[in-house]
Amino acid sequence: MVLARIEGNVVASRKHPSFQAWRLLICQPISPAGEPEGSPLVAIDAHGAGLHQQVIISSDGAAARAAVGDPKSPARWMVIGIVDEPETGAPA
Amino acid sequence: MVLARIEGNVVASRKHPSFQAWRLLICQPISPAGEPEGSPLVAIDAHGAGLHQQVIISSDGAAARAAVGDPKSPARWMVIGIVDEPETGAPA
Amino acid sequence: MVLARIEGNVVASRKHPSFQAWRLLICQPISPAGEPEGSPLVAIDAHGAGLHQQVIISSDGAAARAAVGDPKSPARWMVIGIVDEPETGAPA
Amino acid sequence: MVLARIEGNVVASRKHPSFQAWRLLICQPISPAGEPEGSPLVAIDAHGAGLHQQVIISSDGAAARAAVGDPKSPARWMVIGIVDEPETGAPA
Amino acid sequence: MVLARIEGNVVASRKHPSFQAWRLLICQPISPAGEPEGSPLVAIDAHGAGLHQQVIISSDGAAARAAVGDPKSPARWMVIGIVDEPETGAPA
Repeated sequence: MVLARIEGNVVASRKHPSFQAWRLLICQPISPAGEPEGSPLVAIDAHGAGLHQQVIISSDGAAARAAVGDPKSPARWMVIGIVDEPETGAPA
Repeated sequence: MVLARIEGNVVASRKHPSFQAWRLLICQPISPAGEPEGSPLVAIDAHGAGLHQQVIISSDGAAARAAVGDPKSPARWMVIGIVDEPETGAPA
Repeated sequence: MVLARIEGNVVASRKHPSFQAWRLLICQPISPAGEPEGSPLVAIDAHGAGLHQQVIISSDGAAARAAVGDPKSPARWMVIGIVDEPETGAPA
Repeated sequence: MVLARIEGNVVASRKHPSFQAWRLLICQPISPAGEPEGSPLVAIDAHGAGLHQQVIISSDGAAARAAVGDPKSPARWMVIGIVDEPETGAPA
Repeated sequence: MVLARIEGNVVASRKHPSFQAWRLLICQPISPAGEPEGSPLVAIDAHGAGLHQQVIISSDGAAARAAVGDPKSPARWMVIGIVDEPETGAPA
């Protein structure tokens, strides 16, 4: 699981049918301080994340396939939470 | 899932039989701005992506094995969508 | 499995229900000398790791799903041990 | 799947028994132009790749375990094709 | 699978019970020339690798879970061979 910021979305008319009803978000992994870290990833999202919002994404394929409702979908990354605010102080 | 640009294809006469009818595309991961990000990957493609086109690729092995029709294929990365145009504005 | 240091935690009101009772820790992979190595990861934790503590984290999804008790959870990284002290001498 | 060049092989007398009859090749991922890209990987090979030859390698564990004939083998990367010549022109 | 050098081990009193009888080795991925390549990994070892020895490690979770004898273990990386000497000449 990775902390990331939504940078936009990808429009693809020709795509695997399992993605038909899904937005494909460009997610830039970031540090706790908000700096870009590594390469962007493309994720599906059921939480309604907005542009520039910070999110947590997971590469779990089984959960992504369950989310799109197609056990043969090539879906892998998905938004699993929307960050209220990152805390860098002591864990509660 | 990763945003990438098609850089060419690989010709391999000796290869795993499950790839016999498949093109092996060299896909360069890119940023939303089109800059190269990280190492190139080799993917199969059922969508007919052309040279320099932007695509979304997935590392999901189960879906790739289903695509080539061989449950023992070592296929992993595959093109799952062809990008119309990358949007960096607000997700719809 | 990766050696990492706890850098803080992420608060997400909207998230996958399987994470409801779990802290989401920001884990910075480090070298044996304690230097940051690569991008931070977000992990669940059942061991009670504190801020700045060194931990071992694993990307094993099956174990993470078992930990949260939801076979459809997208959980992947989790704290699997808290480091007493890193030894760089001969393995015992 | 990754484009790589064979840099040599590793000799290991003590190893998992599933690798007994297999060469362990050091594979350097490369760009289409032949430049090193990222860290080297160790792969098994059933195709007879020679030193400095360009190959395609896959991280698919299921296929590697099938290749060595041991469902409990820790094998992951394997050579799945030997490149005739990399084409950087239009895909056929 | 990755070529690595043993840099030490990690002592963790609080850890997943499946690791109770196992050493947790810090493994630095290296190039064939012995230069560090990428971030260190933590692996279990049944072969008795010593400090500074070169090893091959695999991320295969199924094999690691079988090794520790716990199908719910979060174990992933493990030493699968101890290198006699790396050869950079022609594969035999």
